[in-house]
Amino acid sequence: MKLASLKSTSLDGELVVVSRDNKTAVKVNTIAKSLRGALESWALCQPKLQDEYEKLNAGKSPEAFSVDETKFHSPLPRAFQWVDGSAFIHHVKLVRMARNAPLPETLETVPLMYQGGSDCFLAPNEDIPQRGFSHGTDFEGEVGVIVGDVPMGATPEEALKCIQLFVIINDVSLRGLIPAELKQGFGFLQGKPSSAFAPFAVTADELKGAWSEGRIHLPLLVEYNGKFFGKADAGQMHFHFGDLISHVAKTRNLSAGTIVGSGTVSNEDMAVGSSCLAEQRMLEKIHQGEFKTPFMKVGDTIKVQMLDKEGSDIFGTINQKVVQAE
Amino acid sequence: MKLASLKSTSLDGELVVVSRDNKTAVKVNTIAKSLRGALESWALCQPKLQDEYEKLNAGKSPEAFSVDETKFHSPLPRAFQWVDGSAFIHHVKLVRMARNAPLPETLETVPLMYQGGSDCFLAPNEDIPQRGFSHGTDFEGEVGVIVGDVPMGATPEEALKCIQLFVIINDVSLRGLIPAELKQGFGFLQGKPSSAFAPFAVTADELKGAWSEGRIHLPLLVEYNGKFFGKADAGQMHFHFGDLISHVAKTRNLSAGTIVGSGTVSNEDMAVGSSCLAEQRMLEKIHQGEFKTPFMKVGDTIKVQMLDKEGSDIFGTINQKVVQAE
Repeated sequence: MKLASLKSTSLDGELVVVSRDNKTAVKVNTIAKSLRGALESWALCQPKLQDEYEKLNAGKSPEAFSVDETKFHSPLPRAFQWVDGSAFIHHVKLVRMARNAPLPETLETVPLMYQGGSDCFLAPNEDIPQRGFSHGTDFEGEVGVIVGDVPMGATPEEALKCIQLFVIINDVSLRGLIPAELKQGFGFLQGKPSSAFAPFAVTADELKGAWSEGRIHLPLLVEYNGKFFGKADAGQMHFHFGDLISHVAKTRNLSAGTIVGSGTVSNEDMAVGSSCLAEQRMLEKIHQGEFKTPFMKVGDTIKVQMLDKEGSDIFGTINQKVVQAE
Repeated sequence: MKLASLKSTSLDGELVVVSRDNKTAVKVNTIAKSLRGALESWALCQPKLQDEYEKLNAGKSPEAFSVDETKFHSPLPRAFQWVDGSAFIHHVKLVRMARNAPLPETLETVPLMYQGGSDCFLAPNEDIPQRGFSHGTDFEGEVGVIVGDVPMGATPEEALKCIQLFVIINDVSLRGLIPAELKQGFGFLQGKPSSAFAPFAVTADELKGAWSEGRIHLPLLVEYNGKFFGKADAGQMHFHFGDLISHVAKTRNLSAGTIVGSGTVSNEDMAVGSSCLAEQRMLEKIHQGEFKTPFMKVGDTIKVQMLDKEGSDIFGTINQKVVQAE
């Protein structure tokens, strides 16, 4: 099943079911007004939404309309919780090297995660506002999950069973602000402005076998300014999603609708490219002696998507441009 | 005006207006179902709520009922954003000393703030679950504000004008988990479980002149296990609330309903006591050579409230007990 949110007068958007081929959609506000609402009553809503999805795929939804991705917001235009991991250790190594920060001693044993801002996400096609080039705007291509209620103390195995939906993310990062901010010791705030998500959140069956061992075993496709930038395998997470969710739930319950991100998808194989500029810059520094690629400037574009094994676009596309903030 | 949320089947609680003397309340669901909803349409709702408040205080609300604080949730049982400062520098100095962590170089020039979890707060009288004594459960008495929409780039002066309501907070902290967590470099996650708020959120006029220069110039009263623990002046914030809000809004818009905390209220004058155990423990270590007071154990109780200059309880009372988590 594929679910999405049309931009609307509601800050939560308007829930729609999207066809498997991403071509048509149907409003389902008699089932739930928003995806957030559906997630908060998932046991009740899920079977009804699944019925609508099957009708839509069979061409039997009289109210179906053509999908225009620019009309969609992120699947959850806002969420009560967004926690992001850094589960690809190659990424942690490269970005810490880039800012001359030491590696955590617990790098391979304790997930590295942060609490992110979630009160207003960007839409999949929304411009990324930049107040100053010196902020060092970067993209980060990630995969993520949306969970139901997770009880405090859930094990990684129990946590995996709480996953309801999958998403892909552009976790916008301001590399010019992050070093000073992290040096203060309290994590990210200014350095992580609003993230954007591809328009469609999907259930596990839409991943057609690529979802196993708590990981999505497919490449995340990243295009920067219209050119290939990365196709790293999202299956190479060191910690899987159950580990990440369980880590956050150690001392508290997580509410339905919590989004958990993988961190920047990153592989050691240089042939697959990168999912953020910071990694490419660090590789330039290592192999060519200096940073060459600048961070994003006004007008730069970033595209993120993921295709299944048959080449079909699973989540729709993140397609953003950097603009000067007012 | 005093606003509050009754516990209800809705995860956002049910909005009520509370009388100035905290004795009676009235449901106002024809104006807004929840405080969150009211904050999202503040210009429309505020005058109507004010009318109900005046009727209630005049004894002219036929539907008024007696207040029982145990029936109330935190004013916002959940929020899309909770960011907490550490604006009392004396607190930063003592807790960093306690965990042998260096002081940030920017201690007096850049606010120290973190993004907190906000998907499910504890109610004012709700037990604090403890999974293990080794987690080092501590309370932190704080003051806070709830803002309307704040545009990216708002100055401290502009930010002050966005404040709609005031609250007081128990920001539960797990001192046994924080040092290792902060050492990883990404801020708090396991070390800051759900916070609780006193039941009533109030407008500036209820502070009767104690609100000036972006600070609440009143002592925060803290009782631990039924005995005096602290009465530190909340007016001694180094950074005021406008500074804190502006800091967070540097690179992003803040949505209406965002809660901003002061951090633990703390004064250099030892006669006023402390608003958290970590400070008292560090003072014991400095002056008596060793930590004496243990962190909270099952059965311990914590009470936080604030009286105005005439001795009236402004926000109602936080009254919590530590219990063994299941």
